[in-house]
Amino acid sequence: MTAYQDLEARFHRLYALRGAAAVLQWDSSTMMPKGGAKARAEQLAQLNLVCHEALIDPALADLLNRAEAHPHALDSWQGANLREMRRQWRHANAVPPRLVEDLTRSATACEHYWREARARNDFAGLAPLLESLLALVREAALAKAGAFGLSPYDALLDEYEPGLSAARIDHLFDELATFLASALPEAVEKAAAPSALPGPFPAETQRRIGLRFMADLGFDFDRGRLDISHHPFTGGVPDDVRLTTRYDETDFTKGLMGVLHETGHGLYESGLPEQWRHQPVGQAVGMVLHESQSLLVEMQVCRGDAFLTWAAPQLAEAFGGLGAGWKPESLARLYRRVRPGLIRVDADEVTYPAHIILRYRLERALIDGRMGVRDLPEAWRAGMKDLLGIAPPDDRDGCMQDIHWPSGAFGYFPTYTLGALAAAQLFAAARRQDKTIEAGIAKGDFAPLLAWLRKNVHALGSLKHTDEVLTAATGAPLGIEAWRRHIEARYLV
Amino acid sequence: MTAYQDLEARFHRLYALRGAAAVLQWDSSTMMPKGGAKARAEQLAQLNLVCHEALIDPALADLLNRAEAHPHALDSWQGANLREMRRQWRHANAVPPRLVEDLTRSATACEHYWREARARNDFAGLAPLLESLLALVREAALAKAGAFGLSPYDALLDEYEPGLSAARIDHLFDELATFLASALPEAVEKAAAPSALPGPFPAETQRRIGLRFMADLGFDFDRGRLDISHHPFTGGVPDDVRLTTRYDETDFTKGLMGVLHETGHGLYESGLPEQWRHQPVGQAVGMVLHESQSLLVEMQVCRGDAFLTWAAPQLAEAFGGLGAGWKPESLARLYRRVRPGLIRVDADEVTYPAHIILRYRLERALIDGRMGVRDLPEAWRAGMKDLLGIAPPDDRDGCMQDIHWPSGAFGYFPTYTLGALAAAQLFAAARRQDKTIEAGIAKGDFAPLLAWLRKNVHALGSLKHTDEVLTAATGAPLGIEAWRRHIEARYLV
Repeated sequence: MTAYQDLEARFHRLYALRGAAAVLQWDSSTMMPKGGAKARAEQLAQLNLVCHEALIDPALADLLNRAEAHPHALDSWQGANLREMRRQWRHANAVPPRLVEDLTRSATACEHYWREARARNDFAGLAPLLESLLALVREAALAKAGAFGLSPYDALLDEYEPGLSAARIDHLFDELATFLASALPEAVEKAAAPSALPGPFPAETQRRIGLRFMADLGFDFDRGRLDISHHPFTGGVPDDVRLTTRYDETDFTKGLMGVLHETGHGLYESGLPEQWRHQPVGQAVGMVLHESQSLLVEMQVCRGDAFLTWAAPQLAEAFGGLGAGWKPESLARLYRRVRPGLIRVDADEVTYPAHIILRYRLERALIDGRMGVRDLPEAWRAGMKDLLGIAPPDDRDGCMQDIHWPSGAFGYFPTYTLGALAAAQLFAAARRQDKTIEAGIAKGDFAPLLAWLRKNVHALGSLKHTDEVLTAATGAPLGIEAWRRHIEARYLV
Repeated sequence: MTAYQDLEARFHRLYALRGAAAVLQWDSSTMMPKGGAKARAEQLAQLNLVCHEALIDPALADLLNRAEAHPHALDSWQGANLREMRRQWRHANAVPPRLVEDLTRSATACEHYWREARARNDFAGLAPLLESLLALVREAALAKAGAFGLSPYDALLDEYEPGLSAARIDHLFDELATFLASALPEAVEKAAAPSALPGPFPAETQRRIGLRFMADLGFDFDRGRLDISHHPFTGGVPDDVRLTTRYDETDFTKGLMGVLHETGHGLYESGLPEQWRHQPVGQAVGMVLHESQSLLVEMQVCRGDAFLTWAAPQLAEAFGGLGAGWKPESLARLYRRVRPGLIRVDADEVTYPAHIILRYRLERALIDGRMGVRDLPEAWRAGMKDLLGIAPPDDRDGCMQDIHWPSGAFGYFPTYTLGALAAAQLFAAARRQDKTIEAGIAKGDFAPLLAWLRKNVHALGSLKHTDEVLTAATGAPLGIEAWRRHIEARYLV
């Protein structure tokens, strides 16, 4: 057995165990009775420990060194696989085990506290826990920064999106902010008020139509499911993708778009290269492309005229809807409202980037030490005022609204908006290259679109990095042009 | 950290990982789409390997030796915990890793083949795979026999029920067979024909009444669930017990008793000592007591007059049933039919032991090498004729009906009937010691019964072996007397 083969065997086990953890995570949010939480936490903690120990095993370092000494023995997939193995090794070994343990414990406590503190608007109570957690995250970021030769924030970014840097984000977000400064008020002004649709919309009907649209989009129910959870997510493993959503019986629109959003994630997962299932190169390359796939389906396709024209009569029939409100153009107004709001997850696609730009600026300042946790509420209000012209009356709907920071995830937020840019870029390229895509969508035939995504994105796994994937598929690395044209065409005419 | 404390830490991890595997097993049978099977098999295989490697780690042997050198440093729970750790170590280390792997592969292949071979009555096709598997099982049994100083069959029994021996089973089963030789024809003759209940019985109604009875019996839905699977089972972990059943809309009786049977298993699991959750001493002591708890609920309680008197009007109301067929005494006739049949899982409680005695005799002969796989069909027919007076027309409903042998489980069958004996013995003692138990059942108050079981069985975990538990609770080790009296009282009057 060569060093490389030994590494494949070790990572095979690692991904089988991570797959086990992924299914258990899904179960925790969908099936588990509340009394099972403590035992589940132990199961997941021990699985994570076994995986972490496999990565810090000195024998693994030795194998990586030996395999890297013979790069010509590997083909391009194996080479990319080895590169990703090294990346994981670097992240796991840059941080001392004591700090890993402290981080887990601190994040668990902080997130747990946040769940109730948010409801009672108790930032003062949360602050000390968030300060402790931030101190540990900064310590880990500093350790990684030293090991990788990066700035601390860039070291955190690398965990979610390999190679992403703050300099790159600054450049893109500055362009975006400039564009939005004039585009946003114009879009708000131009958006027509939608007609209200009278409910109720039975959850069972919402589920049925969601399942039908999923199947039409190409989701394979022999290799996945749809269930209910408090926060929608995509979990499981590529051959067993577990999507979740929730249903509001007074408003079907969010639940339905939630299903379509997760379907985009699910199609990416199930389209990853089958022969590399339990290897690093067989996984999604990063969160930017992952988010691009959900937003391509939800924002680019399903809020577009072609899709809504096809979907509107089906929705009207399913819910027994009558009248002008159920016409495609009316549903389009509903799905394309532009209104500055306080809550990120409720934001439309024009105002959404402003929410992300705010979080990015604040978390960078926190990680760089230019700002403390206790300055967050005021900085949040000032940032919202500056970017969206509104400010939250309290912290619950301000700096406490997201789970990311209380759970220790710093450096994740930018991928949402970078994903939106990538989605616009990919969808524009797809339609340019295959004229049958748009026509297909208008009649509910999504096969041409899926084939394009399979070939240009999904089937590549982590063979190439995000910018290489985008350049090969669209002719350019990640940029704001396609997104700007998309917003102009949909909201500024 | 003492050697014993180190052992506790290692077994804590082991049980957390086994708990993870248990939930994934449940998911495989209830939730998993069929395309997920391959990935799931990998997840479970790697989890099992990690657990097996933990048990064969030489450092563990060293810790066991050191902890056993200081028995007086441990209290009785810790001492029992150490004893069970050693038992698991012995089982894991008696068999070479190569054989463990071969066994897993062979059993998987054989069971997989059996699933389709049974349907087409293809014993000739199954035989070579079963022969290979049996050869490996015998090799493992021989290795364990040498290591434990036991006979090969006793070494297999020890895996499911610590300390159980063929000599003990011979003694009990000979008494049973003698009793049944006269009791069985008499019971058949005395059993009154039940009135047929006209269906259909909607699955949703069956589920609702099953959930209600479960709750009444004391099942805590904050720490467990009920779902559907092809074969009913109890899975999950003690604080998250996952029961399954299936519903036949033409006949509610089996599905309902299935739920009550699994509820008995589930109550045992959830009643195991909470402070020892992830340690060997906190687990069920063996399959005899486990089966006793399911049969105590299903057979002793729920087919008894007190329960049926309470349950009959609720069943009639739930299913909209009218007429004499829904009276308690009519339901009692339905639930107490005695009829020799070909299929074990459909057998009544009088004929059931005959099915087990047959399997026990045959599997002993297979393990001892007194019989070959190809002799099974004929030996099965002869045995059925001898014990029940009927013989199967084919192998599908003969020696191919059970999953146990094709999946490599030899030495398991006896625990079913030993569990039935223990159930009768425990229920008789419980009613003797607490007169409120019977009265409680008649009005749907199962709290006194559950309290007795919690104290005398569940809360003991593996502190004591089965015979010690039975002796302390009932005044005698496992025997057939209580079961004989139960059968006489219910079927021979």
